[in-house]
Amino acid sequence: MKGRDIISAFDFAREDFMRLFNEAKICEKKRTLRIAEDKMAITVFLEPSTRTRLSFTAAMLKIGGKVMDFGGIEASALMKGESFEDTIRMIDGYDPDVIIIRHKVEGSAKMAADIAEHPVINGGDGMHEHPTQALTDLYTMYKTFGKIDGLRVALLGDLKHGRTLSSLSYALSMFNDVKLYCIAPPILQMRPEVVEKIKDKMPCKFYNSLEELDEEIDVLYVTRIQKERFTDLQEYERVKGSYIVSPTLLSKLKKIPIVMHPLPRVNEITTDVDAMPQAKYFEQATNGMYVRMALLAEVMGLKIPAE
Amino acid sequence: MKGRDIISAFDFAREDFMRLFNEAKICEKKRTLRIAEDKMAITVFLEPSTRTRLSFTAAMLKIGGKVMDFGGIEASALMKGESFEDTIRMIDGYDPDVIIIRHKVEGSAKMAADIAEHPVINGGDGMHEHPTQALTDLYTMYKTFGKIDGLRVALLGDLKHGRTLSSLSYALSMFNDVKLYCIAPPILQMRPEVVEKIKDKMPCKFYNSLEELDEEIDVLYVTRIQKERFTDLQEYERVKGSYIVSPTLLSKLKKIPIVMHPLPRVNEITTDVDAMPQAKYFEQATNGMYVRMALLAEVMGLKIPAE
Amino acid sequence: MKGRDIISAFDFAREDFMRLFNEAKICEKKRTLRIAEDKMAITVFLEPSTRTRLSFTAAMLKIGGKVMDFGGIEASALMKGESFEDTIRMIDGYDPDVIIIRHKVEGSAKMAADIAEHPVINGGDGMHEHPTQALTDLYTMYKTFGKIDGLRVALLGDLKHGRTLSSLSYALSMFNDVKLYCIAPPILQMRPEVVEKIKDKMPCKFYNSLEELDEEIDVLYVTRIQKERFTDLQEYERVKGSYIVSPTLLSKLKKIPIVMHPLPRVNEITTDVDAMPQAKYFEQATNGMYVRMALLAEVMGLKIPAE
Repeated sequence: MKGRDIISAFDFAREDFMRLFNEAKICEKKRTLRIAEDKMAITVFLEPSTRTRLSFTAAMLKIGGKVMDFGGIEASALMKGESFEDTIRMIDGYDPDVIIIRHKVEGSAKMAADIAEHPVINGGDGMHEHPTQALTDLYTMYKTFGKIDGLRVALLGDLKHGRTLSSLSYALSMFNDVKLYCIAPPILQMRPEVVEKIKDKMPCKFYNSLEELDEEIDVLYVTRIQKERFTDLQEYERVKGSYIVSPTLLSKLKKIPIVMHPLPRVNEITTDVDAMPQAKYFEQATNGMYVRMALLAEVMGLKIPAE
Repeated sequence: MKGRDIISAFDFAREDFMRLFNEAKICEKKRTLRIAEDKMAITVFLEPSTRTRLSFTAAMLKIGGKVMDFGGIEASALMKGESFEDTIRMIDGYDPDVIIIRHKVEGSAKMAADIAEHPVINGGDGMHEHPTQALTDLYTMYKTFGKIDGLRVALLGDLKHGRTLSSLSYALSMFNDVKLYCIAPPILQMRPEVVEKIKDKMPCKFYNSLEELDEEIDVLYVTRIQKERFTDLQEYERVKGSYIVSPTLLSKLKKIPIVMHPLPRVNEITTDVDAMPQAKYFEQATNGMYVRMALLAEVMGLKIPAE
Repeated sequence: MKGRDIISAFDFAREDFMRLFNEAKICEKKRTLRIAEDKMAITVFLEPSTRTRLSFTAAMLKIGGKVMDFGGIEASALMKGESFEDTIRMIDGYDPDVIIIRHKVEGSAKMAADIAEHPVINGGDGMHEHPTQALTDLYTMYKTFGKIDGLRVALLGDLKHGRTLSSLSYALSMFNDVKLYCIAPPILQMRPEVVEKIKDKMPCKFYNSLEELDEEIDVLYVTRIQKERFTDLQEYERVKGSYIVSPTLLSKLKKIPIVMHPLPRVNEITTDVDAMPQAKYFEQATNGMYVRMALLAEVMGLKIPAE
């Protein structure tokens, strides 16, 4: 994938996922590599982010590379009225080996990639996409089940605003026999334009609550429902309880699935789930670093040494 | 000390101090080492700090390692409602070789160490402890006097709120024949629970002002008295003068001690003390970096090459 | 230039510029070097800055070195009342191989250099100087014209408040037969103390607008005019149009010069200039990184390997 931009989960082909997973496993085993010693990444997080930035930074350091952070938007020239285009052109001019960008506007990562000569990785653009989170999520499923084909994945919570879930759905749709269960209050169901892109490739069923779910699932992917998304607060009060995952709620399912979450978790998964073997959300964050080590290496044209 | 957490000054034994001092001397002589090239520290400073963070960062870089900073609390997921426990678990999942943490709550470093699998170093937890400052302070005394045993150390200023002084007192109590002189306005005297831990190991005398001190001392350790600690501002106005260390005030002592300060200094030591050979506070900051090089190496199981 | 402080453009001699330009060219060709692997720079930007900080950071990383950032002023001990002198002494005590400082007060870099034992590079001190921007600017002219001698350089915009333009003028004055054209509204003309330092070495002509310019120029160096500099807003409204550089405005000149700008650009150069071969401002930012690689190496006593 040398020199390629990673803007959407669709920028990965099925075989890219499989190769990256195998490379991530090697990274995890070796812990550190010295393949990127002359390489520099620039992280440009124009929207607050801790974990995506840390994950990429740790990944770059652990393959031996260097990271330069653009700094917060408050202190930047963007606040002096500089255009996004000028900022990207300037950053690109520092000859980074890869640019990782997060921005609150949909399409900003694509715009950056169009301007920059160096490869751009989308670290989240508004509600649009977050392809490396999808990579992380699939890697976690792959490590657990040894495959992605045939998995039954339920998405729970706010499916409307999460870029994580769009990218995850796109990624899953590239595999065979995956079934998707979208569980959300009607006003927070997956956006039509997201469904449009996957519905011909993967069966999707829609539910209003987890209790309605009538089939066995392998994965329960939880996201938080934010109070401020509701115009009708009574509606919020009515639904919030069914979107808090607890051992009790899980035990009502036909089979206990693994529980995933992009983090940070607030109260949508109770802490007594943490000790269950099915709780995968902390491992998921760690997996994200290993699979980003693999991705950064590929994008910069570096070889992960065979085991 | 490979893999050990450093939460309290009591986590060092007397022989740990002596070994670290010798290693720090080698670090100071060599200036840089290449022993930590595959190692990564994560610094997590959830309370504003410049110098402890810089000191650890410089130390890690100078032994050849890499540092990833968590970033300020404002931008972090903690602000989105994530629990401290989840944050630590996530950080620990990035497989750092050491975690350095500062937090305003007493006991937070201990809590982090209990959660994390990787070693945790306490960079200051509320009013509780700051063990590496104590290490720095003792190293400075050791470099000056060639020993810690038998030193007579006076602490001056706000002895109640300073975690620095608790840790320093604990550290000194592990040596032989050390005498401690606690000089503070009554409302800012050392907390009973701190005194309790040292009083059987080391004689402590209490004074209201430096003028009352009737014995020779080797070390005068100064800390700032903050106006806002006083409910009675007249009381503040009355005492503040006796807590400003000047060449004149020093000359009234039976013997001029070395003057130490954890920095930043505001006006509690007048700048005309800076040129006196007894002024050790800037050297103290530098010593802190060298002794942290030694400590980081030990905690990560790395060998400082013999001279 | 090993161990030297770089406070003013006058700290460079003509032959320093030429040697640095040749070294910068080698850096640009090689992209990365491994000559500074045991070296550490500390960046201290006490005034918001993105690009100077990034440029120095990228430069240091690309010659193989490490960078430690002091962090924003908000979080620092300076906010607790520590003096600038104490801060510099502390930073200097961390044994950095070079200190890069920006501060809003004129003369602060000089003061830092007087205190610090390690070399200090001025990254901008108030309205005073910004010597490495001048280095960047001259390198860009040199790359374009193969020489600095004999160039005719017009400065356009706010010539009063820009440290960039003072340093650039000083630097140009060291070369032969350079002519300077200062184009600004009367209240924003170059300060007398700046003119004083150059007028005997280099002919300077003063204009109120670009339309008045009656000679061919090689370089048009544009800076922004900020509304808030005017006490009389009608005056601002009257002049602002003539300080916006567009293809049309450029086509009215006897010969189209190269267009330079220290960036960030807001609207003082229209974006349709960007595609013109004369637009050099983005290349200029990139050049800044390469020439800083050369400068950092020289100041730290490191040799750039011959091509």
